Amino acid sequence: MLHSLKGIAASAGVAIAKAFVHEEPDFTIKQKEAKNPSDEIKRLDEALAISREELTAIKEKALNELGEDKAEIFSAHLLVLSDPELVDAVKAKVNEDSVTAEFALNEVANMFITMFENMDNEYMKERAADIRDVSRRVLGHLMGIEVVSLAAIEEDTIIIAHDLTPSDTAQLNPDVIKGFATNIGGRTSHSAIMSRSLEIPAVVGTKEATAKIENGALVIVDGIDGHVIVNPTEEELAAYEQKQADYEAQKAEWAKLVNKKTTTQDTHHVELAANIGTPKDLDGVINNGAEGIGLYRTEFLYMGRTELPSEEEQYEAYKEVVERMDGKPVVIRTLDIGGDKELPYLDLPHELNPFLGHRAIRLCLEKQDMFRAQLRALLRASAHGNLKIMFPMIATLEELRQAKQILHEEKDKLQASNVDVSDEMEVGIMVEIPSTAVAAPQFAKEVDFFSIGTNDLIQYTMAADRMNERVSYLYQPYHPAVLRLIDMVIQAAHAEGKWVGMCGEMAGDEIAIPLLLGLGLDEFSMSATSILPARSQISKLSKAELESFAQEALTKDTADGVEQLVRSKYSQS
Amino acid sequence: MLHSLKGIAASAGVAIAKAFVHEEPDFTIKQKEAKNPSDEIKRLDEALAISREELTAIKEKALNELGEDKAEIFSAHLLVLSDPELVDAVKAKVNEDSVTAEFALNEVANMFITMFENMDNEYMKERAADIRDVSRRVLGHLMGIEVVSLAAIEEDTIIIAHDLTPSDTAQLNPDVIKGFATNIGGRTSHSAIMSRSLEIPAVVGTKEATAKIENGALVIVDGIDGHVIVNPTEEELAAYEQKQADYEAQKAEWAKLVNKKTTTQDTHHVELAANIGTPKDLDGVINNGAEGIGLYRTEFLYMGRTELPSEEEQYEAYKEVVERMDGKPVVIRTLDIGGDKELPYLDLPHELNPFLGHRAIRLCLEKQDMFRAQLRALLRASAHGNLKIMFPMIATLEELRQAKQILHEEKDKLQASNVDVSDEMEVGIMVEIPSTAVAAPQFAKEVDFFSIGTNDLIQYTMAADRMNERVSYLYQPYHPAVLRLIDMVIQAAHAEGKWVGMCGEMAGDEIAIPLLLGLGLDEFSMSATSILPARSQISKLSKAELESFAQEALTKDTADGVEQLVRSKYSQS
Repeated sequence: MLHSLKGIAASAGVAIAKAFVHEEPDFTIKQKEAKNPSDEIKRLDEALAISREELTAIKEKALNELGEDKAEIFSAHLLVLSDPELVDAVKAKVNEDSVTAEFALNEVANMFITMFENMDNEYMKERAADIRDVSRRVLGHLMGIEVVSLAAIEEDTIIIAHDLTPSDTAQLNPDVIKGFATNIGGRTSHSAIMSRSLEIPAVVGTKEATAKIENGALVIVDGIDGHVIVNPTEEELAAYEQKQADYEAQKAEWAKLVNKKTTTQDTHHVELAANIGTPKDLDGVINNGAEGIGLYRTEFLYMGRTELPSEEEQYEAYKEVVERMDGKPVVIRTLDIGGDKELPYLDLPHELNPFLGHRAIRLCLEKQDMFRAQLRALLRASAHGNLKIMFPMIATLEELRQAKQILHEEKDKLQASNVDVSDEMEVGIMVEIPSTAVAAPQFAKEVDFFSIGTNDLIQYTMAADRMNERVSYLYQPYHPAVLRLIDMVIQAAHAEGKWVGMCGEMAGDEIAIPLLLGLGLDEFSMSATSILPARSQISKLSKAELESFAQEALTKDTADGVEQLVRSKYSQS
Repeated sequence: MLHSLKGIAASAGVAIAKAFVHEEPDFTIKQKEAKNPSDEIKRLDEALAISREELTAIKEKALNELGEDKAEIFSAHLLVLSDPELVDAVKAKVNEDSVTAEFALNEVANMFITMFENMDNEYMKERAADIRDVSRRVLGHLMGIEVVSLAAIEEDTIIIAHDLTPSDTAQLNPDVIKGFATNIGGRTSHSAIMSRSLEIPAVVGTKEATAKIENGALVIVDGIDGHVIVNPTEEELAAYEQKQADYEAQKAEWAKLVNKKTTTQDTHHVELAANIGTPKDLDGVINNGAEGIGLYRTEFLYMGRTELPSEEEQYEAYKEVVERMDGKPVVIRTLDIGGDKELPYLDLPHELNPFLGHRAIRLCLEKQDMFRAQLRALLRASAHGNLKIMFPMIATLEELRQAKQILHEEKDKLQASNVDVSDEMEVGIMVEIPSTAVAAPQFAKEVDFFSIGTNDLIQYTMAADRMNERVSYLYQPYHPAVLRLIDMVIQAAHAEGKWVGMCGEMAGDEIAIPLLLGLGLDEFSMSATSILPARSQISKLSKAELESFAQEALTKDTADGVEQLVRSKYSQS
């Protein structure tokens, strides 16, 4: 029997407990033909009603025990249950094809799931997960299959599952659920995000955890390095208990840094900022001692609705963030939608290569009414704090000039109407397209700052879709070419006295941090939970020493060569 | 009435003649329901039979008058007519839905057309055009609509059409058809390619030629600058007659350069090579005085078939090309398939962003049996001439090293079996991914040459799909960042004593040529018909002077700024 599994470290920490293997019930549809469609419709309505009762109860429980955010998942599920597009389609299928309710439900749900999943859009994929989750609940009732509730677990447990659905994770009680391991998923899958928010150690994408781990086996989940150990030896157990204790000690050390500035050993100051998606993320930002917001993604304001958000609604959201950040810098990115991120109400045409498509600033410069409303909301919010505007996906100076021109027009109009607007507001751009990195000397003259968006910059530089598993090995943050582009951007900005931030995942990466410090990066923006570990790491590094080190890294042949160089000198672990 | 239309210059030259507006017949299906499906099947079979007779006659005519290549179009059409996938689907639809033959044919044909067009693959798009062409012919017979034959035109004419189908262009008699203008299409659409091969001046993509031009109007087609003038004034007529005479004189001058080497005014030699897709293209290559083949795309060998080509078949094709080029260099690119270029028999998974997907060398390193067969064929052909191997889509040194390792293994095996293999064969890579351009100093140590593939390099550098019309304005060959990357590649190669070619469309571009010469490009590979104009242009330029000029261009802000700079100093027109 396999003793150890490798997966993706989804949430840091070490958990040691007995395994509970969460089996996927067998939803194979055994009976297709129905003699009497009206009986099937009746069975379907009953199953829907029971499911509705269950979900209402779970939603109440979640609201009391886990908070509003998680309860919202079940509001979404209740909406699916009453969605006429789904329910009517199932009933029509039962009637027209004389099939059983379970067969029809399964067919219709799979059609929707496939459709939403193929949209390759976080919001739509989440909808696919909701439909899968709800349809299984209803199928369970139709087919007499008992779906085990994870809420019933009462002793210390590590959950082993193919995947965990939103209903599953919302029922987890973090007092007894010590960790989990799944077969599928990546660092950004639902279960991974939930594990970090619950602060439960987790390893995802192990491929075969459910096949290789038996119920009740003692399991270690190492969410730091992405290992799952099954039935550990005494020595392993002792080693991991030590690792667990070390991690807890480190967390305690990090907690002391919450209100500290970020400085290197040789007293060079850099800013550690947080990436956020909604004002709801601010608690985590403040609790983790961020020195600012390096990236406020405004897409969520536009999602999950049927029309554009009003200027007023946007203004309130932006104002809330700058006010709560209390004078600390808040970089707000204008809408980065289009391509893979669809807004149904904009009715954008399908594109063959959405990552290379008509999105972000390209779309905003076309849909100027939408863009101008956002800019007005941002300008008005700028009077309430330290707001900076950032344009995404800038590839040419013409685009930058046009966007700035529109911004100035809206500012002039607001000021002419005596609306308060900051006169100090900085305007910058994302550097996420290779052309902009290479032509940074030209761009640096016309912006107040750059923020390097490594997620996109790397995928374009390597010509590899980072969501495509077949080429994900080419998503190489340490490739010498990526580092050289970052170097070019920072040098160009500093030559013009401008600052450079980074708001991709790379900014919080332990291997990348020494390199980025050495290249002179001024601001590192990351997920809030990465800030304290990064501050701790930086406090032990010397900027002066790293400068020549980073130049050495640029001359390496390969990403592996760079990584080995960093590990040999600066790795903490 | 509009006097002048702007379009895309598809085939150089000036034509002046009376317009023939080729009207699109109205194929709106008026009758859907059929009373007697078996009557419909009978009507369909009759329409198919008449269409078959017609196509056979046209094919014979094309074979006699226009050559084998064009006759092949009609062989393809005859195949569509007997394709059971199409014909049986139409008949099934007639029977199952009780609809008319024209309704069923239109539905089924549109389904196939949409499917093939969405594949975004030249070969498949051509199939979509074939199906549209054939289905209209059959629809015409079913609906009693007379489709005008362009072959019947007997006096000097300029054809004005929405678009020209393969059947249309194959019937054009270049003795009387002086030029054409279409509403839709780009430089690489079927009608544009045919106009160049027939050497008929053409302007495509005018959007409204058919709406704005009346039958019999005097029209000027300026295929040099992409203008169509309707009912010209006396002065305009005189000016364009002069332009026509100048162009003919220039063509005569170019013809004198066929057997000349390409040298600048200050006697610097560069190599002008041709891009080819099949050995059939060699006549054009030799007639236009190419000094080598800079890019032999091997994809066509793999297309339009049901299984991989054998090693032997590939060997014969490669050998034919190197032998006919008689010692001149022939750069053969290994298979660049996958992503948007699908091979049905490989059954590759669909990708959301095929241009950023698992293609070219990425796929070849996975499908090693296929790759090794091609390498063996290339190695064996290398004994017969000056063959160089080039790997596409290289993004990391690991990929290059692995590809070279496989090549060496196959070479060793062949030599161990006493098969003749050249020991001098150069091995290079396409530089078409930004990472490779930026890390060119590292790559230059491990290759014999670079060939810059600007079509892809530009689209990745600008993060803009060049096939997507909504972002095609971002496909900017003169963007300072693109030029800077080219500069980095050339400098890195020359520092290691290696040569650099270019095989994208940019290499034959009149504005780009002075810049590329100034940056030190060694080899320019282009479509065969561009070689003589380029040779003529280069003979009038001074390399020494262009070196500082090109460095000045790198500091410009925008692609427009660069273009204006070149036009102000070096434009021929």
